Amino acid sequence: MSVNIVRFERQGRTQWGVIRGSRITPVPGTYATTGEFVRNTSLAELAALGGDTLELSAVRLLSPVTQNQQFVCQGANYLQHMIESGMDPDVKSYNMIFTKAPSCIVPADSDVIKPHAVKFLDYEIELGLVMRKAIHGAVKVTNADLHEYVAGVVIVNDYSARDIQIPQMQFYKGKSFRTFGPVGPWLTLIDARDIEAMSNLLLKLTVNGEIRQHDTTANLVYKPAETLTELSGVHDFDAGDLLATGTPAGCALSIPSPRKQKVGTLLGEKKKWAMFMKVQSARAQYLKPGDVVEASIRTADGSMDLGVQRNRIVAQG
Amino acid sequence: MSVNIVRFERQGRTQWGVIRGSRITPVPGTYATTGEFVRNTSLAELAALGGDTLELSAVRLLSPVTQNQQFVCQGANYLQHMIESGMDPDVKSYNMIFTKAPSCIVPADSDVIKPHAVKFLDYEIELGLVMRKAIHGAVKVTNADLHEYVAGVVIVNDYSARDIQIPQMQFYKGKSFRTFGPVGPWLTLIDARDIEAMSNLLLKLTVNGEIRQHDTTANLVYKPAETLTELSGVHDFDAGDLLATGTPAGCALSIPSPRKQKVGTLLGEKKKWAMFMKVQSARAQYLKPGDVVEASIRTADGSMDLGVQRNRIVAQG
Repeated sequence: MSVNIVRFERQGRTQWGVIRGSRITPVPGTYATTGEFVRNTSLAELAALGGDTLELSAVRLLSPVTQNQQFVCQGANYLQHMIESGMDPDVKSYNMIFTKAPSCIVPADSDVIKPHAVKFLDYEIELGLVMRKAIHGAVKVTNADLHEYVAGVVIVNDYSARDIQIPQMQFYKGKSFRTFGPVGPWLTLIDARDIEAMSNLLLKLTVNGEIRQHDTTANLVYKPAETLTELSGVHDFDAGDLLATGTPAGCALSIPSPRKQKVGTLLGEKKKWAMFMKVQSARAQYLKPGDVVEASIRTADGSMDLGVQRNRIVAQG
Repeated sequence: MSVNIVRFERQGRTQWGVIRGSRITPVPGTYATTGEFVRNTSLAELAALGGDTLELSAVRLLSPVTQNQQFVCQGANYLQHMIESGMDPDVKSYNMIFTKAPSCIVPADSDVIKPHAVKFLDYEIELGLVMRKAIHGAVKVTNADLHEYVAGVVIVNDYSARDIQIPQMQFYKGKSFRTFGPVGPWLTLIDARDIEAMSNLLLKLTVNGEIRQHDTTANLVYKPAETLTELSGVHDFDAGDLLATGTPAGCALSIPSPRKQKVGTLLGEKKKWAMFMKVQSARAQYLKPGDVVEASIRTADGSMDLGVQRNRIVAQG
C-alpha cells in the first residue's frame, strides 16, 4: 500500500514528511539526499507514523528528488509518441536512453523559465522511478522483485527545447536548462503489492486547462523491469537516483513522417532543418509565457495518487 | 606553473599526493571527492609541499576524478574528427554536448572491458577540464579568467561502443559502460600562467605501439572558455566536475560522407545501418581483447605533462 512523502522547508529547515490529505506528519531525523532518505526509512514505519501534523500550506514544498542524484531518461517509449517524433516503430529496436543535468530538478509547482535562446518549448509528462538501492553490476530484474529496486514513483515533466534537441540531436543540452525538470509533488513509496497499480497509472497533462496528453503506463514499450535489467549491465545506480520512463503522445512537437524526412534529406541538411523550424512555427501548442501546465498521475480508482504538478511558463528575465 | 596530483590507495587508505618524478609527497588531510580536494587546497601550497615521500610503485593509483562528479563531454570538436564522423563542418554550427555515466570512470591504467554485446569498441583521447568552483548561473568566461573556473586538466579516454552510439544515436548508452572512462594518471593543477600551454597541448594515442591519434588542443573548435560560457547558461557545475573536450581524428570509426549518407537514407533505415555495420566490420582498427592503448598529453617542451594512460582491452568475463 503506497505512502506519499514530501520534502519541504519550514523555518529555514529542510525536512521530510508523510502527507495525508492536506496534513503533513514530519519524519524524525535529517536526510540530506533522497538516497539517504530511502536507505534509512521503511515504508511500514512511515505508513504507521503518527505525531503532530502541519498544514501543507504552511510549508514550502521541495523536490522529493535531490539534485545530487542521477537523472536518467528513456525516450520514445510510448508507441504513439514514437510515431509523432518521426520514428518508424518498425525500425526502432532499442531502448533510447539519455540524461538531463540534475540541476534542472525543481519543485513540482515551480515556474518554468523559457530561455531567450529557446523558441520551441515543449512539455512531456512522465512517470519517474526512484531507486531503492545501489546497483553496481548486471542484475536480472522482474516484476516479482521490481519493488526491491524501485523505492517509489514521482511525476516528472521533462521540459524540452525542441529547436535544440531535434535539429542538433542534442537531447542533453535541449532538456537540461534550469527549471526544465519539475519533480513531485509527492514521492509515492511502493511495495510489492503496488507493482500492478504502477503498470496501470493514468497520466494526464493539460495546458491552460486543455488536455494535451492522456495515456496509461500500460502502454510503455520498454517496461521498468527490463529497462533496469539492461541499464544495470551498462552503469551504476545509487539509491535515490531518478529514471524517467518516457512520455506519451500529445506533445507540441511535430516531425514529418519517415517518408517526408527522406525527401528532406535529399534537399540537404540546411534546407531540411529550415523546413523543420517552419513546421514547428505553425504549431500553436508550443508553450508561451503565461501558459499554465498541469500534470497528474494516479490510478483510475485513486488508490495510488502521485499528486498534481502546476507550472507557470515565464520568460527569462 | 602546473603541479601534478595523484589520488591513491595505500594500506587500505585513500590519499592525495603531489607527484614529482616517481616520488609522491602525500597531502595532509582527507578529501573524499575531487570537489573537496580542489576547494580545500591551493596550488601554491601544494607546489611548496615538502615532507616524506613514497615511491609511485608502492601505491595503487586511483582516478583523480571521483565518481560522484558530473562527466560532461563535447563531441565532434576537432575539424578532422568531425569529417571522419560523417558530419558536414559547414552545417554543424553548434557545440555538441553529451554525458557519460560517472560510474565508467576508472584509474588511468585500468583494463577496459569489452562487453559481450559490443562489436565495435573505439578509443578517443581527450583533454579533460576539472572545475575549480561551482557555477549556478550564466557567466562569461574568457581566457583571462579561465583559471578561476578550471582547477586543472586530465587525460580522458572516452571509450565508445560505435555499434550502439551511431546507429541508435545513443551517445550516453554507447559511452557509459563500466571502465569506458579512464581518467588520469595525474590531475595537473594549473594557474593563470598555464592557460597558454593548455591551448597547445599535444595529444597522442597509440594502439599496440602504432600511432592512431596525434593532434594539438590548438585545433579545438569550441574552446574551453566559450564552452563554459555556453554551458553555464544551461546547467550547474560543481567543483571537481569533469568536462572532456572532444577527440581528434584517427578513431577506428568510419562513417560515409554526407553525400553517401544521403544515398543510404534513400535505401531506408534498415539497409543504411546494415551498410554502416558492414563498413565497420572491415576496419581492423577496432579494439580487440589483448590490444594495449596508450594515451599521453603534454606540451612540446614537456613543461606541462599530464602523464601516460595504458589500458589493456579484455573480454567481458
